[in-house]
Amino acid sequence: MLSLKLLELLLAIIVPIIGLALAGYNASSVLRIKPGKKELTEINMLIAEGAKTFLMREYKTILPTGIVLTILIWITYYLIFHSGLMAGLAALSFALGAIGSAVAGYLGMYVTTRSAAKTAWMAKNGMGAALSTSFKAGTVMGLSLASIALLIVTVLYKAYSSVLPNPSWAEALAPVAFGASLISLFIRVAGGIYTKAADWGADIVGKVEAGIPEDDPRNPGVIADNVGDNVGDCAGMASDVYESFVVVLAGALLLAAVFGLSTKLIMLSIMLAALTLIGTLIGIQVVRGEVRGKNLAAAAMGKLNLALYTTIIVTAILVAIYSFLAFPLMEAVAIFVSDLLGMITAIVVLFATEYFTHYTFPPVRNIARQAVLSASNVIVAGYSYGLLSAIPTILMVVASLGISFMLGWFFIPVNGVVHTVEGGIFGTAVASVGLLSLAGIVISLDSYGPVSDNAGGLVEMTGMEDVREITDSLDAIGNTFKATTKGYAIASAGLAALILFIGFIYEVVERLGITLTQALGELTVIDPRIIIGALIGVALVYFFSSQTLASVGKAAGELVEEIRRQFRTKRILELWPQEKPDYNRAIDIVTRHALKNFLVPGLSAVIIPIIVGLALGWIGLVGTIFGVILAGFPRALLMANAGGAWDNAKKYIEIEGIEVNGQKFGKKSEPHKNAVVGDVVGDPFKDTTGPSLNPLIKVVNTVSIVFAPVIAAVSLTNPVAHMTITLIGPLLMHLILALAI
Amino acid sequence: MLSLKLLELLLAIIVPIIGLALAGYNASSVLRIKPGKKELTEINMLIAEGAKTFLMREYKTILPTGIVLTILIWITYYLIFHSGLMAGLAALSFALGAIGSAVAGYLGMYVTTRSAAKTAWMAKNGMGAALSTSFKAGTVMGLSLASIALLIVTVLYKAYSSVLPNPSWAEALAPVAFGASLISLFIRVAGGIYTKAADWGADIVGKVEAGIPEDDPRNPGVIADNVGDNVGDCAGMASDVYESFVVVLAGALLLAAVFGLSTKLIMLSIMLAALTLIGTLIGIQVVRGEVRGKNLAAAAMGKLNLALYTTIIVTAILVAIYSFLAFPLMEAVAIFVSDLLGMITAIVVLFATEYFTHYTFPPVRNIARQAVLSASNVIVAGYSYGLLSAIPTILMVVASLGISFMLGWFFIPVNGVVHTVEGGIFGTAVASVGLLSLAGIVISLDSYGPVSDNAGGLVEMTGMEDVREITDSLDAIGNTFKATTKGYAIASAGLAALILFIGFIYEVVERLGITLTQALGELTVIDPRIIIGALIGVALVYFFSSQTLASVGKAAGELVEEIRRQFRTKRILELWPQEKPDYNRAIDIVTRHALKNFLVPGLSAVIIPIIVGLALGWIGLVGTIFGVILAGFPRALLMANAGGAWDNAKKYIEIEGIEVNGQKFGKKSEPHKNAVVGDVVGDPFKDTTGPSLNPLIKVVNTVSIVFAPVIAAVSLTNPVAHMTITLIGPLLMHLILALAI
Repeated sequence: MLSLKLLELLLAIIVPIIGLALAGYNASSVLRIKPGKKELTEINMLIAEGAKTFLMREYKTILPTGIVLTILIWITYYLIFHSGLMAGLAALSFALGAIGSAVAGYLGMYVTTRSAAKTAWMAKNGMGAALSTSFKAGTVMGLSLASIALLIVTVLYKAYSSVLPNPSWAEALAPVAFGASLISLFIRVAGGIYTKAADWGADIVGKVEAGIPEDDPRNPGVIADNVGDNVGDCAGMASDVYESFVVVLAGALLLAAVFGLSTKLIMLSIMLAALTLIGTLIGIQVVRGEVRGKNLAAAAMGKLNLALYTTIIVTAILVAIYSFLAFPLMEAVAIFVSDLLGMITAIVVLFATEYFTHYTFPPVRNIARQAVLSASNVIVAGYSYGLLSAIPTILMVVASLGISFMLGWFFIPVNGVVHTVEGGIFGTAVASVGLLSLAGIVISLDSYGPVSDNAGGLVEMTGMEDVREITDSLDAIGNTFKATTKGYAIASAGLAALILFIGFIYEVVERLGITLTQALGELTVIDPRIIIGALIGVALVYFFSSQTLASVGKAAGELVEEIRRQFRTKRILELWPQEKPDYNRAIDIVTRHALKNFLVPGLSAVIIPIIVGLALGWIGLVGTIFGVILAGFPRALLMANAGGAWDNAKKYIEIEGIEVNGQKFGKKSEPHKNAVVGDVVGDPFKDTTGPSLNPLIKVVNTVSIVFAPVIAAVSLTNPVAHMTITLIGPLLMHLILALAI
Repeated sequence: MLSLKLLELLLAIIVPIIGLALAGYNASSVLRIKPGKKELTEINMLIAEGAKTFLMREYKTILPTGIVLTILIWITYYLIFHSGLMAGLAALSFALGAIGSAVAGYLGMYVTTRSAAKTAWMAKNGMGAALSTSFKAGTVMGLSLASIALLIVTVLYKAYSSVLPNPSWAEALAPVAFGASLISLFIRVAGGIYTKAADWGADIVGKVEAGIPEDDPRNPGVIADNVGDNVGDCAGMASDVYESFVVVLAGALLLAAVFGLSTKLIMLSIMLAALTLIGTLIGIQVVRGEVRGKNLAAAAMGKLNLALYTTIIVTAILVAIYSFLAFPLMEAVAIFVSDLLGMITAIVVLFATEYFTHYTFPPVRNIARQAVLSASNVIVAGYSYGLLSAIPTILMVVASLGISFMLGWFFIPVNGVVHTVEGGIFGTAVASVGLLSLAGIVISLDSYGPVSDNAGGLVEMTGMEDVREITDSLDAIGNTFKATTKGYAIASAGLAALILFIGFIYEVVERLGITLTQALGELTVIDPRIIIGALIGVALVYFFSSQTLASVGKAAGELVEEIRRQFRTKRILELWPQEKPDYNRAIDIVTRHALKNFLVPGLSAVIIPIIVGLALGWIGLVGTIFGVILAGFPRALLMANAGGAWDNAKKYIEIEGIEVNGQKFGKKSEPHKNAVVGDVVGDPFKDTTGPSLNPLIKVVNTVSIVFAPVIAAVSLTNPVAHMTITLIGPLLMHLILALAI
């Protein structure tokens, strides 16, 4: 058994190191390519530098908050636990969680932004070369985030559990999730506002007012727009999924610790993640060599899908072998099936998202057909399908929670006893780990999107007509993966949030030193604190969504002014323009406003849970977290999918056209204009507010877990004592509201 | 004390009878007016007959379901209680609840639809005459629904409690709420689809394709459109608020019975409703005589507002006198303040709705200014404000729940003991009764809207240019009340649902014969059945919203075909048209499709709670109800207010115009067209899906309460036993989903 334990540890440390090494190798092999066309590299570097500047400014802006929080966590833990070691380790966890997220985002962005020119150039050698170049660039992001997350959590677990008793080590480790959340919230919200403000602003003056095409280098906002794609689709998505991964791993460890599970079960989630990483390392090898076939795009798509399925199959085999080797038969079955269920959930969610957002399926086609009537019909139809699209993912999450709970209940022993709620909950954690472990491959596929998107833009800007077809096909495939990955990220966030939610409750029970039965007796849904807390949670989701949506318009307005000014003063649009457009000023303006507009929604996400916890006690906070998850998770699906569907309804009319009553409508027709209205509405839905809800539902959990010891300490058992303080809550929110209007 | 009891009973019976008498008197005095212009009455009768036909068809369609449910309730109660009396009374309650709602809706509709011509004619005598005529017509609806609701509940309570022991009488009475819900669900959903399908269809062919004005009598859809306004704004709103009123009264009685409160406290909610009805009878007297002043519209508005405030002040005085007479000091304070809090909630909600939907305030003006940029900006801005607009109402509900809970906890004795959760819950019930008792005056103000709206339409159609200004002013005021009443109806539905939700839990506990502590120990938010149930509840709200939104487009499409056909075959638009338009055929087509499209969302609202209850047990059902309330209540606010704001942003541009960068934009400008896109999107938001969510969140409660005895009987204590059955739920919803797509 010792040999197995050693093997486990080796796997959990060595596999992520191999992952990082492969990421490094792929990075250098892509970056080594030297495009033969100077312009290509020049424009690409503008985008790469812009993205880097934006990311560094984000990090710089968040740094003071990060330092304050690190100190605050240190103080809090010191006051509660009276242990310098505990306080130091907790603060370290938080810092490492944040730094890990920042580093993974930076590394990935560095490579993906610089790879667009390489991909565009390699497209001269055919589809195969272009595909493998852009996918390799994507794997740098995917592999590094999966490896860094796994490595940090493993090392922290090993180190902390050797110096602290059970479950103190888990309590000191939990802030790692909050660190990751904070960065992710920041990148998602500020990045989401940035990307769509740049897009809207550049389009309003460029496409609409001046009538120049998208990606026209004369538009001062064009680089900002391209930077935005990288920031939002690449860094945003990566930090979001990284966060969910860390949250689920840390959450599973925390649950295992407070349940008092065996070391083997504590180690289980790390092992599953390591085995999936092996599967990923093998799976991504599929995408290489020539792409052949009548339909090159379909063949390329097939290769990428094959990478995903290979990863899942290899992982399933490895997990089967491991669990049957390490656990008794029925326990192994429970673990294997739950892990598999998580991976199946990923596939179902990816497919459901594709069904509702891609024009090969009825929903998007129906939305497109509504464009013949009016723009309003497009909006209503898209919104209606958006609502519907949330249901399959919700039901799949329900089914996977239900089945894995049952398996855990029946077969996973807690202190040697089966048939416990704790066993069931741990089963759901295994399913969540199964879903999240696929992060490496899913993010590789996702990050390939912005690379090929930017490659297409570069080809347009530099007039490389000969490879246009290849980059267009790659871009179309990339868009599909970008859209479906959103569904995966939301489902991940939902499951991660639920795991942490339960973790929070057990953690408070642990801190209060009461029995679980006592605690559960208080946690009833008819307690006014739960109902009021839940309503406040829903209000928080609405407030956050409203603010992020409104911010895009505000920031875009500023960019519009700037582009108009440059057009006017620099005479850019004339035959012999006097000056070149000042791309950096445009980037700077959007950056400034994105960061400014982050403040209100971002801070309210962190502060309101703490206020509720202090005023309404831990019971009220449980209500708030529940309300945020219930309102935020389906709303994220609605907004992402409606946005995706509107986008593709427009593309459907552009590419295939619609025929109604014998009349054919294509690009620039009246129905196309109507579809564009939907597309533009969908932009902040799918790229700002929708994705921002993922870190929101996680950060309310992570902040609660970190401050759980304090909240438990000030929690009173008398509901009325809290109710008197409650009135502060609404008053405070009214104040925030008044400031926001 | 006996004298007080007798007085109580007399008040509770005699006041509603006076209310009905005054309604009858007002009806006859309005109907007695004979307009001197024949056309006016002719067209008015087309609308009145159309509305009657639609309502009767709705009733006829629902009749078989009603009979089946009556029998089902009889059988269920007989099997559970083994008492023919109990079963008969329960079935009777259900039938009376439904019939009461149907009768109140029919009476009110009968008068309001016939009063438009009278109002238009009386406008010749000036603003005062027109206002008092239309308001009198409105009071018929308001007074009859408040009186019928109060009378039915009082009589049932007195009769049942004299033949059945406590709390059996309350259990036999509870189905009255389900009966009211069923009718309301039907009228809201089918009526909501009808009204907007007729509006969209008539506008698409009339205004957009043929270029004829709105309300042009050549448009075959014009009568259907006017019928729709009455069905939706008048019958729909009335049945909705009637339902909430019955639900709250029945819910308060049920809670008082299962808590074992004193007879005086049981009778309290009925007394508060009766006293408020007295206040209403006095308050509505304010609207009479001449309207004088520089600004006639403002003066008319002032009179209507005065009616509301008079009602509230008189009621407050009466409630103060009654409670200090009947209860010990501190108990009286708790009752008085809670009741007042309910009325203050109504005022705050009415004002918050006006703030977010009327163009005298910044939100609508900001939305209108976005129209200069693009239609997409209008949509995003309106949606963002819609999200924000939900927050004040949510927070006001939170505050009134919190404070009334505290007051109840401290001062309302349960079995002679204060400081109990039950006392607190009863406090919240008193606040809800306070809010709902204003139904009479609020619905009077609301019903006045469609009367003046139709009067304006008739003036337009018959070319009575001289009174145009008066009817336009009346219409504008009516629109404000129509919009703000929506907020009141939603807040009412939310509070009613919460009362019933808690009632359901106590009812099950009663039936299971377990102690409350045992039950509460099971009702924890981490129970997988609660989490899964809540996610299913959210999915139900999404499904229901998606279906109702999509139905409007489908039904409108059918009407578009019909109008086009009539234009073609009847040559209506030519100088000498060959035939008159066939209005009835248009009405018939929209009716048929509205009723057809009701089926899927309507049935799922009733059946899914039962399925969840049988599969996941009562605990799962508690989760589902909680999920439906948390998702449905704010979504109703979002959709109603965003729709109202878009509507008024368009009107703002039409009436006052917007000025941006020195340029002025008014009707028919490009920004106006952009605002129209928002207006049309808002139509099904505010008049179909938004209002339909009110009965949804109530019907899941009422159906659960009615079948609570069965659900309690099949509920098992082992969570896993349920989980195995759970998988049926997702499968079934997938099936419904597949059918729906």
